[in-house]
Amino acid sequence: MIDVIHQKQNAVDGSTVPATTRDRIADTAERLFRSMGYQKTAVADIARELGMSPANIYRFFPSKSAINEAITERLLTALFQGAEAAASSEGTAASRLAAMAEHFRASSIALFFNEKRMHDMVSAAISEHWGVIAGYIDRFHGLTESVIRAGMESGEFADGDAAAAAMAFKQVTLAWHHPMMVEECMRIGEGEEVMRAQMQTTLAYFIAGLKRGIR
Amino acid sequence: MIDVIHQKQNAVDGSTVPATTRDRIADTAERLFRSMGYQKTAVADIARELGMSPANIYRFFPSKSAINEAITERLLTALFQGAEAAASSEGTAASRLAAMAEHFRASSIALFFNEKRMHDMVSAAISEHWGVIAGYIDRFHGLTESVIRAGMESGEFADGDAAAAAMAFKQVTLAWHHPMMVEECMRIGEGEEVMRAQMQTTLAYFIAGLKRGIR
Repeated sequence: MIDVIHQKQNAVDGSTVPATTRDRIADTAERLFRSMGYQKTAVADIARELGMSPANIYRFFPSKSAINEAITERLLTALFQGAEAAASSEGTAASRLAAMAEHFRASSIALFFNEKRMHDMVSAAISEHWGVIAGYIDRFHGLTESVIRAGMESGEFADGDAAAAAMAFKQVTLAWHHPMMVEECMRIGEGEEVMRAQMQTTLAYFIAGLKRGIR
Repeated sequence: MIDVIHQKQNAVDGSTVPATTRDRIADTAERLFRSMGYQKTAVADIARELGMSPANIYRFFPSKSAINEAITERLLTALFQGAEAAASSEGTAASRLAAMAEHFRASSIALFFNEKRMHDMVSAAISEHWGVIAGYIDRFHGLTESVIRAGMESGEFADGDAAAAAMAFKQVTLAWHHPMMVEECMRIGEGEEVMRAQMQTTLAYFIAGLKRGIR
């Protein structure tokens, strides 16, 4: 489908291919969701900004919720790319897990709290488009598993079930990764420094557990 | 204040002291919240059930939200008493931590999911009466700390900061304790057995971390 081609750099001269209509709709919708809020933005507002008819928007997205799904997918893709960079950084498996957790913590606060309206958008996606979120969680799980397995193979961690340990990592870091939990931490007045220190301690116990093993 | 005296057994003949008006209001409100839902129950409904005037209810509670606060406090007190029993059970510190986590997991599902309307009530309390929730978290934290400290003193766990480790235990068990997370796990179709197995693995890594220590 031509309308799902994303804007990309030309390999020869570095120029960019023009964004497709689908991309332009998503870009404009994201900007409006950020400035007006997801609930208050209507498809008619997005159409007006783009100088097109609502009917034309519906050719590309069946509903506002479907636009949100596409934006959430882009946002989670960017979040995951940061995690991949952390996972392939220099250092021990333990330090790479710590870098991943720190990436999620810092990004979650920036995305979901500082931009309160993005938070609402992602919360809507959690209830309306679990598939997008589930896909993200699966990729995150696979990435974590590969780092833990590398640590088990090098002898840094005790032998064990890397997939089960990756699931545990997800649970251990939940408070700093899940938008609702991050929002609650911030709302009850946990400062960012407190949250960070607590994450480091919690993670330190998990890493010590990986080194000792559970068998 | 006489109206905060709770129903209690007479030590001599086992008869019960009549519930105070305040207790009767809370009991009736809890029953209506469970059957009609928190949002749909009005103070007038509670008054009608008790054959009293709404004005009389307001003598004891300034608002429906204040009634919810009292009910939530009772509910969390009962939840905490179960945790105290688990914390003082026979066995190692590790097995007592596991018993506490299992108590929270099973109770949370029973309370917050099977009784969807209780869940709404507690969710309302989380946003309206953080003080009650914070008090519960503090008691939970203190209890966990005492079990972990006992484990450190007996040599079962490595030496360390028991308070910091107790905070980590709270984070590690968040997915099975926080009503919103329990609700999400159930909604996305994680069966209870899967949730339980994941909790046991996650906890096993944390316990192994306590044994190895993080210093």
